[in-house]
Amino acid sequence: MNSAAVQKAPKAAKRSSSADQLLEAASKILAQRNSIDVSLSEIAEASGLNSALIKYHFGSKDGLLVALVRRDATLALKKLDDLVAMQLAPETKVRLHIAGVINTYTKYPYLNRLIHVLLTNSNEKLAREIADFFVKPLVDSQKKILEEGVAAGIFRNVDPMFFYYAIVGACDHIFFGRVSREFVFGAPVITSKTRENYIEFVADMALKSLRRE
Amino acid sequence: MNSAAVQKAPKAAKRSSSADQLLEAASKILAQRNSIDVSLSEIAEASGLNSALIKYHFGSKDGLLVALVRRDATLALKKLDDLVAMQLAPETKVRLHIAGVINTYTKYPYLNRLIHVLLTNSNEKLAREIADFFVKPLVDSQKKILEEGVAAGIFRNVDPMFFYYAIVGACDHIFFGRVSREFVFGAPVITSKTRENYIEFVADMALKSLRRE
Repeated sequence: MNSAAVQKAPKAAKRSSSADQLLEAASKILAQRNSIDVSLSEIAEASGLNSALIKYHFGSKDGLLVALVRRDATLALKKLDDLVAMQLAPETKVRLHIAGVINTYTKYPYLNRLIHVLLTNSNEKLAREIADFFVKPLVDSQKKILEEGVAAGIFRNVDPMFFYYAIVGACDHIFFGRVSREFVFGAPVITSKTRENYIEFVADMALKSLRRE
Repeated sequence: MNSAAVQKAPKAAKRSSSADQLLEAASKILAQRNSIDVSLSEIAEASGLNSALIKYHFGSKDGLLVALVRRDATLALKKLDDLVAMQLAPETKVRLHIAGVINTYTKYPYLNRLIHVLLTNSNEKLAREIADFFVKPLVDSQKKILEEGVAAGIFRNVDPMFFYYAIVGACDHIFFGRVSREFVFGAPVITSKTRENYIEFVADMALKSLRRE
């Protein structure tokens, strides 16, 4: 290793760390809001870093938001991959998958919204990239679980598109509706007990829908 | 009737008609988009009217959007009221209610998004007004149908908040996900056949979830 490389290492580590700090600051701000409106200067202020670093690391605010989706979604998709590969009954996989989706939205309540806005407002190339990166693997994993259940004679055949939108919509909407939760149901916060009960409600609904009669 | 009143009548009719034209223009623009971003000048141009009329009739763009929510939601809520009052089996009411929600989103795909943004970005007074005007009556009607089913010994007790978010989320998400529908499922348009099948899928899922075992 020459001295130039030695000198470069700490710089690279610092770069990576400041990029992480910016993502974490953006994540924290978005988790506290109902919208995905966030400015470069807010992110910079919350991270304690200069907003020029956002352009340096991510090119633009959208670049940072895409990186945030990648960061948050990567772990969730990895867990789902692992789940699909496990030796478990298809019913157990459906249940754990729904718990995983709801727990992901608990941790990153802005994630589905952010993906939607990036899909909707980006140029077609970026929108396809996000769909390929996030939605397609999720749909493919669901399909595999559904097919296993059908092959085992437990599940009926359902349209994977219907299953995807019904289940993701059900999991997402209780987070999405924070204001109506507060004003109509008096439940501004989803407690861990409520979350557990909602996982049970949605999983039970999904399994009853899937089971052969 | 004096001549002033006679002269006034056509003006009032014209006022009402230009307000309707502006709402209809905004509705058409929003129905073609995935976002609820629309400018005063776009609405004015599409309606063939001067953008000053928006301020005259609605005070602001937000005023127009609130009026649009009221316009679209009023008919849907009236139909739901009528449904609740009918002498029908609770299962039939659930099925027709879900068809009503999905048909409303088909007609006004922006409606849920628009309500969300108005709930989220408005001052608390307006947000409560929208929640009281739209979400609360919907939830109350659902509660009545669920209670009828429980009283008839057909439905189990479920948390009305869970039912609301799971069902509205399922109904909404297939419209919300227009870009992912296109890129991942190759289904940019929801045909009337798909809509009918999705109503059946969600209604079947809801009823299986509700039935006592």
